Amino acid sequence: MDISPQISKLIQNPVCFLSDSPAAGDGIAISSRIRLARNIEGYPFPGNAPEALKKEIASLVRSAAVKSRMFPARSSYFIFPEELSESELAILVERRLASTGFVKNPQGALLIASRDEKSSIMVNEEDQLRIQCMTPGFDLDSLWEKISGIDDKLNTYLEYACDEKYGFLTSCPSNIGTGLRASVMLHLPGLVATGLINPTLEGINQLHLAVRGLRGEGSKNHGNFFQISNQYTLGITEKEAISALAAAIVKLIDGEKQARERLFESNRNMLFDKVGRAYGTLKYSYHLPLDEAFYALSCIRLGVDMGMFNAIDIATVNRMQIALQPGHLGCQIENFCTSDDCDERRAFLCRTLLKSGIKKG
Amino acid sequence: MDISPQISKLIQNPVCFLSDSPAAGDGIAISSRIRLARNIEGYPFPGNAPEALKKEIASLVRSAAVKSRMFPARSSYFIFPEELSESELAILVERRLASTGFVKNPQGALLIASRDEKSSIMVNEEDQLRIQCMTPGFDLDSLWEKISGIDDKLNTYLEYACDEKYGFLTSCPSNIGTGLRASVMLHLPGLVATGLINPTLEGINQLHLAVRGLRGEGSKNHGNFFQISNQYTLGITEKEAISALAAAIVKLIDGEKQARERLFESNRNMLFDKVGRAYGTLKYSYHLPLDEAFYALSCIRLGVDMGMFNAIDIATVNRMQIALQPGHLGCQIENFCTSDDCDERRAFLCRTLLKSGIKKG
Repeated sequence: MDISPQISKLIQNPVCFLSDSPAAGDGIAISSRIRLARNIEGYPFPGNAPEALKKEIASLVRSAAVKSRMFPARSSYFIFPEELSESELAILVERRLASTGFVKNPQGALLIASRDEKSSIMVNEEDQLRIQCMTPGFDLDSLWEKISGIDDKLNTYLEYACDEKYGFLTSCPSNIGTGLRASVMLHLPGLVATGLINPTLEGINQLHLAVRGLRGEGSKNHGNFFQISNQYTLGITEKEAISALAAAIVKLIDGEKQARERLFESNRNMLFDKVGRAYGTLKYSYHLPLDEAFYALSCIRLGVDMGMFNAIDIATVNRMQIALQPGHLGCQIENFCTSDDCDERRAFLCRTLLKSGIKKG
Repeated sequence: MDISPQISKLIQNPVCFLSDSPAAGDGIAISSRIRLARNIEGYPFPGNAPEALKKEIASLVRSAAVKSRMFPARSSYFIFPEELSESELAILVERRLASTGFVKNPQGALLIASRDEKSSIMVNEEDQLRIQCMTPGFDLDSLWEKISGIDDKLNTYLEYACDEKYGFLTSCPSNIGTGLRASVMLHLPGLVATGLINPTLEGINQLHLAVRGLRGEGSKNHGNFFQISNQYTLGITEKEAISALAAAIVKLIDGEKQARERLFESNRNMLFDKVGRAYGTLKYSYHLPLDEAFYALSCIRLGVDMGMFNAIDIATVNRMQIALQPGHLGCQIENFCTSDDCDERRAFLCRTLLKSGIKKG
């Protein structure tokens, strides 16, 4: 498969949102992200803009990104989704640089990203600009400082569509006001295993926070990852929204810690069994669906976090978590696994990464 | 746990019905067995005999067994089930020296067995004598010669209850005549995996043969083992019954071979997946129910038979198959695994035998 040079460069690096050393929150809070929705005064929302106009918008944003020195031309990615294959688009989603909505409508779209992938802009997603900053662990405050700085710099080159009363104008009314969506990705296997996850998440909904799966809106529980984000953008400042989210995250981390302790005290053998079987599955299977792989990796991550397992480290778990997803899988093993079956290739890659397998000869 | 000296000696040896080298029938026909039901003229069937009379019968049989030199006193087991614990009784069943019915009614019962366990007599099971010969692989003819010889020798010391017209008299009418039950234990994972097992077994029933699981009457499919035996004992000679059974076994072995070839041709990756996952389960689980262990061992056995797997050999598979059963499990690891949970102890023993596991420190 021909891979575009920029994508080829991307997949050589680890993703920016998984830390290979224990992150803040004892490995429970995996990563934090803030997105800002912005639009340029005088231009229609992407949904109402013909392709030519979207290209003009993309050009304006690119120019602002470079001139502001937030995304220097020589050290940033400028990726045009319409030039990419489905596999390459999937890679952008798997690296959390692009939303599924963004890659589904690639005409006139542009993705701008820093080399470390921690800062990026989706241009012509639902809004003209979706500025994003990501970091491993739980650190919304510095993330807010950072994205706020980028936003201000871009604003000196782009006049944002803004209403004095409501705030920033956005394509979907749910984002009007701050245009801010802050989220924290949590790994909650303890709450899932103790059956406390549903009441806990219901409590989260009552705090006007949203819960999503690994892949964002509409995605389900993959590998016990849950993304918690603010729902309100109107009548609330950015800092208020972030503090409310942060307070809930602290409680969730605490709940997960307690659940893990309870599991360890009451049934540690069940935990060892989960972790051991997961390791056996990754090491020896020859047909491995994505959900099963993610579940197994979640068990291993839990085992490593709890000091129960050291046959592989978190860096390997992180690497596998990304590499086993369809886009990365397609681009990485094309040349050395001839099977057409994605689940067989995933199992092959797993065995290769764990240097194992049972096949003779 | 105190173990009686004879049981202690038994469990040090491999069982006689599993061969560590590929048996006749390419490892599909695991073992053959013939049992003869006999009763002594002038004595009631055990079901109608008071304990004192059963003891008298046991004494008579023991004396005949020794005097006939079929079971020399110094080199045979003479085991009184009523002196044994439940675990020890289970061991006798797991080694196929005793039926479940035999160990459920231990009063006045006696088990006589050769050191190699290939010849034995249950005294005061349903009938006064159930003479048994077992061998690994598929070899009913030499088994018949052997048991027939033992039967004749015993007969010189014991007068069997016999009717001129019907033949040997037995407690249950279903055994009257020859009193012979010949059976072959088959490992049929290919027929199970291809879904052909049910029509195949229905065909077997139409040949007036009986199909049972690993543990005999009433037992279910454990680890894809099926015991095929003759049903008729009346109006048919021993050799006719044995030939009819042997002919069916030849066909079943052939059907299983074809099923394995078909699986290998059409979906060998699925086979590797089954074998690999089974190995992972045995190697890394911490809670392992018996059925799951047997299923995993069946997959491994299939993998070894088909030359797909060589991380462990058939000798280890055989050893595990016996050691993981409740009786053997109870007597073997009492001293070095403190868990009360049988499934945890089974998993512990598995990991120990495979020198693996994930536990830290």
